[in-house]
Amino acid sequence: MTRVGVIGATGYAGAELVRILAGHPAVKLSVLTSRQYAGVPFHEIYRSFTGAVELECEAFSMDSVCDRTDIVFTALPHQLPMEIVPGLHANGKKVIDLSADFRFSDAGAYESVYTAHTAQDLLAHSVYGLSEVFTDRIKTADIIGNPGCYPTSVLLPLAPLVREGIVVPSAIIADSKSGVSGAGRGLSVASLYSEVAESFKAYKVAAHRHEPEMEEILSGLAGTAVDITFVPHLLPMSRGMETTLYAALSGDIADETLYECLADCYAGRRFIRISKTGRPPDTRNVRGTNYCDLGFVVDRDHGRLILMSAIDNLVKGAAGQAVQNMNIMLGLDEQAGLDLTPFPV
Amino acid sequence: MTRVGVIGATGYAGAELVRILAGHPAVKLSVLTSRQYAGVPFHEIYRSFTGAVELECEAFSMDSVCDRTDIVFTALPHQLPMEIVPGLHANGKKVIDLSADFRFSDAGAYESVYTAHTAQDLLAHSVYGLSEVFTDRIKTADIIGNPGCYPTSVLLPLAPLVREGIVVPSAIIADSKSGVSGAGRGLSVASLYSEVAESFKAYKVAAHRHEPEMEEILSGLAGTAVDITFVPHLLPMSRGMETTLYAALSGDIADETLYECLADCYAGRRFIRISKTGRPPDTRNVRGTNYCDLGFVVDRDHGRLILMSAIDNLVKGAAGQAVQNMNIMLGLDEQAGLDLTPFPV
Amino acid sequence: MTRVGVIGATGYAGAELVRILAGHPAVKLSVLTSRQYAGVPFHEIYRSFTGAVELECEAFSMDSVCDRTDIVFTALPHQLPMEIVPGLHANGKKVIDLSADFRFSDAGAYESVYTAHTAQDLLAHSVYGLSEVFTDRIKTADIIGNPGCYPTSVLLPLAPLVREGIVVPSAIIADSKSGVSGAGRGLSVASLYSEVAESFKAYKVAAHRHEPEMEEILSGLAGTAVDITFVPHLLPMSRGMETTLYAALSGDIADETLYECLADCYAGRRFIRISKTGRPPDTRNVRGTNYCDLGFVVDRDHGRLILMSAIDNLVKGAAGQAVQNMNIMLGLDEQAGLDLTPFPV
Amino acid sequence: MTRVGVIGATGYAGAELVRILAGHPAVKLSVLTSRQYAGVPFHEIYRSFTGAVELECEAFSMDSVCDRTDIVFTALPHQLPMEIVPGLHANGKKVIDLSADFRFSDAGAYESVYTAHTAQDLLAHSVYGLSEVFTDRIKTADIIGNPGCYPTSVLLPLAPLVREGIVVPSAIIADSKSGVSGAGRGLSVASLYSEVAESFKAYKVAAHRHEPEMEEILSGLAGTAVDITFVPHLLPMSRGMETTLYAALSGDIADETLYECLADCYAGRRFIRISKTGRPPDTRNVRGTNYCDLGFVVDRDHGRLILMSAIDNLVKGAAGQAVQNMNIMLGLDEQAGLDLTPFPV
Repeated sequence: MTRVGVIGATGYAGAELVRILAGHPAVKLSVLTSRQYAGVPFHEIYRSFTGAVELECEAFSMDSVCDRTDIVFTALPHQLPMEIVPGLHANGKKVIDLSADFRFSDAGAYESVYTAHTAQDLLAHSVYGLSEVFTDRIKTADIIGNPGCYPTSVLLPLAPLVREGIVVPSAIIADSKSGVSGAGRGLSVASLYSEVAESFKAYKVAAHRHEPEMEEILSGLAGTAVDITFVPHLLPMSRGMETTLYAALSGDIADETLYECLADCYAGRRFIRISKTGRPPDTRNVRGTNYCDLGFVVDRDHGRLILMSAIDNLVKGAAGQAVQNMNIMLGLDEQAGLDLTPFPV
Repeated sequence: MTRVGVIGATGYAGAELVRILAGHPAVKLSVLTSRQYAGVPFHEIYRSFTGAVELECEAFSMDSVCDRTDIVFTALPHQLPMEIVPGLHANGKKVIDLSADFRFSDAGAYESVYTAHTAQDLLAHSVYGLSEVFTDRIKTADIIGNPGCYPTSVLLPLAPLVREGIVVPSAIIADSKSGVSGAGRGLSVASLYSEVAESFKAYKVAAHRHEPEMEEILSGLAGTAVDITFVPHLLPMSRGMETTLYAALSGDIADETLYECLADCYAGRRFIRISKTGRPPDTRNVRGTNYCDLGFVVDRDHGRLILMSAIDNLVKGAAGQAVQNMNIMLGLDEQAGLDLTPFPV
Repeated sequence: MTRVGVIGATGYAGAELVRILAGHPAVKLSVLTSRQYAGVPFHEIYRSFTGAVELECEAFSMDSVCDRTDIVFTALPHQLPMEIVPGLHANGKKVIDLSADFRFSDAGAYESVYTAHTAQDLLAHSVYGLSEVFTDRIKTADIIGNPGCYPTSVLLPLAPLVREGIVVPSAIIADSKSGVSGAGRGLSVASLYSEVAESFKAYKVAAHRHEPEMEEILSGLAGTAVDITFVPHLLPMSRGMETTLYAALSGDIADETLYECLADCYAGRRFIRISKTGRPPDTRNVRGTNYCDLGFVVDRDHGRLILMSAIDNLVKGAAGQAVQNMNIMLGLDEQAGLDLTPFPV
Repeated sequence: MTRVGVIGATGYAGAELVRILAGHPAVKLSVLTSRQYAGVPFHEIYRSFTGAVELECEAFSMDSVCDRTDIVFTALPHQLPMEIVPGLHANGKKVIDLSADFRFSDAGAYESVYTAHTAQDLLAHSVYGLSEVFTDRIKTADIIGNPGCYPTSVLLPLAPLVREGIVVPSAIIADSKSGVSGAGRGLSVASLYSEVAESFKAYKVAAHRHEPEMEEILSGLAGTAVDITFVPHLLPMSRGMETTLYAALSGDIADETLYECLADCYAGRRFIRISKTGRPPDTRNVRGTNYCDLGFVVDRDHGRLILMSAIDNLVKGAAGQAVQNMNIMLGLDEQAGLDLTPFPV
């Protein structure tokens, strides 16, 4: 069995990795690290894992981690992964990084929204892990820059249409809504129950760090500059992300053609479920799973396409897509360990 | 004291009217009607009112209602008000109707999305009750068509800008999100707690009945046809509505100019609170009150204005604005009975 | 593969059976029935199952169901199962009934809280399906009366202590709290989102139908009459049930002895997780799973044991325990298909 | 107008004081202090107050506060009030303290669960502010120890019955459930939205600091030692507290007698609403108000009284009762500023 380590296992994305990997038939969790909880059994931090996960959290040590793993997930705040991924890579480990550090091929784009990049030479080796879109490159990758949750929810519906020139590449609007687990387990007044309940609001309007990530990928697919106005909002719920996209059609394109463009692109890819009838996707239907549900409606009066996606921000938006990428890298069925049926209610 | 009746008092908007009117210093609740609960004390239906409201619900009777009221709120499903408003009007009662029946000056627009209109002659007498925008006409009105919650959340931010020609009248997008109390107290699986919790989704995409209502009012203000793409979404919370609007600016307009356009239009109107600093409004900050909070950001890279509003769908979006209209009609301070401070948490 | 039918598949317990059985390695879902949705694909009722469950709902037909199943779950309101279980039994099908119809060995006890029992002769054949307590009898049963969610949450913590005479059999108090999915998918104002959110209350105080079910089982285990005061409460959440039990200790019994009594009784039974340190169980830690978490504290000042349990009312309290019983009846590992790790958040 | 200061205005109880006092007809908010937010306008911390509260938070200064107030509320963590209340008192200010520091007449009882008491001489001057029970003493008090939320929810239903000897003073059980705003605005993982949602659990089982507070007051009323087993639980909602009490009746006492005992004790006290018909109180019906709703059922089979209360933990359990006490101290109508109608939904 492939031995797997999770660096930063006690944040929400890390814990979700543990949930999925603990039930994976072809890999074995061998190392969990946590700066804050070194020495504490993982199930004492997340009691739900009692009886299911016996590992103890440990402080990160390069040698020890390399000795006991074949593949490593890094679920750390950005800037930390670029300090340790070079070492893991040098030791021959495959790495899937859930931060932004290895998502950009252009260090300048990264630096414009984050900080100085100290492992720029590895950017050429890293592949953007949008599983269904860059499958072939992921197969042979050593380092994956796993997409952010917002970009995943924006790119999966748009990628096929942008690639085929079906939507006008300028003037795309993405109105996204995310559950609060996306803000992580860090302490902040804004994440307290009493502040989130019965609250809905936008934040970082047209100024979110994920906008350049989306534009770099879309422009690459379109072969021309793609502009996007991105407005994220915070939902009073834990998990789930919905994005409603507005774009001008490049011509008088039939619903059937739009459906086929999406369906052809994602043929045989189980995690993408596309509604033929314009039914809007609901976050509840993907909760706890790796699904991305898509729906669309054309506002013919205004020649405008309305395209909607729903994902679980912690699964398809983070840990689930990361495991899917691992499966692809290891030559496994991409669904391995991800056969998760959502709750009916 | 002015005697006030509420026809259809046991739906959510009706009950919210009772809440506000029970604490109003210048009027007295005199009649509550309910088909379903005739003969039942109101506080047995809504236990929270025990000790605060002693009235019993009664079946509607034109004569009895007219004998015991000076002004009447109708909080019924559309189509019912047009059956009784003519009689109330003929008996000299002022009427504020919370349904769509008296919102349109053009019966054809109404009929295109609802049903045949059987009281068309009264449409010329009715005034659209967007309190801060049509104040003068409301002062002398006999019949008010009280705006829907979605139109209120769209029109209050847009009205000043459209009137001044600051935004391009075509290509406006309204992405709205509503708490589920907007669906009312009627029984449907979609409104059950277990179906709503941890769920977020769009519905009636670009096909909602409120779109023509918005376009009629905006076109009137702009003096030219205004087009809007409107997509409503359902939030996992009871009360609250947020709308994020996207529009092209008609020129290179400074933030300060935008702020002044809004601030001038709403000068002296306490219920409109405008953020100078682009802070997005939060539904929590208006909960239970008649406030409409506004904020905006210009995405200069794309020449696009992002305009946001937050209201309580049951208050400024229904019962609160209705009482504000009553205040204006009666020559009272428009804030009377509406001095509601939202909870800090 | 054993062929399995679910009669009444579209209620919440039925849909949860579908969720669990769809992922079960040793059985195959072959029939789903629904009066209301006959002819509709199951995944059109519960969209989350799109791509995972292809079966269509059908009207119940005795012959057709018997031809195509080996074992049948009945997830119907009480009174309906006793009409069809005799026919299923006569056709040699094993039956697991989730209603109250086959929970009582004494028809009089059933009739005192429900209605006339029309299949009394089968009561002698039916076994009360409290999986960890009546395992041996379940192995050879043809008909299982699957326990209610409240009784499961009360009986699992109490059974070992009552059997050993460790608590005084009179004067037991059970203060239970349930998520609203327990009320099912039926339409009622009390189940609407806007009525449940931010609400907590008791209901059917000391008058709930589950009290006799609890007392019959406990008295059987104790070999003497056991009295219980049972007060259920409704929680503002979908899934989860917590019960806090108060009982007098029959002597000066050490914490260690109490722990051992519970631990010995449930040795080797993975779904029962007992805290050694008095940590109160949390419904979040069992959500979506078949676990029953237990904790206890002795209030030594008052010689009183406080015993707490947490389950998911739809899983260990309904569908999960039903599948566990099926596993036991079929000679499978009792955990088959129930290896569900709860979400960390 | 009486000038009022709030020391510690930015915690949840402090902010709730601001909400209520801002709408009070007979007093004027003159000072708000906050260590953390000195120099920040209050409405920038709680945006909901924009346009309603103009005061700026300031650091505490004894002289400055005494110059500009007549009465002072201290809403600080325990141990801090006993440092400043002596100074306020020496300057002739009336003080209402929301912490535990002045709730005990016996310093030893305080010290057994908190810390060394450094202002013991003032305990003789302070009055326990359970408004409806100790009204006469509150009228003439200089210092009020405002009750905790849990004790309020336990004492209001029990006080009349314990005083009349109707329940057996030993063997009382209080099973309480609180919304999370009771934990305050302090940062802790346990208060994060994603940790609280869909979670219900007990905590500090039979070990909560409020137990001695309850027992001291009840024993005083009963004239004999009263024992209580108290188990608090945490609800997935912001505001609201329900307590279900279990007690043995001291004889064969009719429901009518029980009702009259409660009704007589609270005759003329609007905030106590008692159900005659055994209807369990619902936290939703008191939300945002100073009501305490009571209901009871006798489990005649077991001779046990089940008594239930519902309050808003931040209002009747904290800020509302504090303002009610201020009203009584100032000779105002006890309802002044507290005429708050709860939301219907």
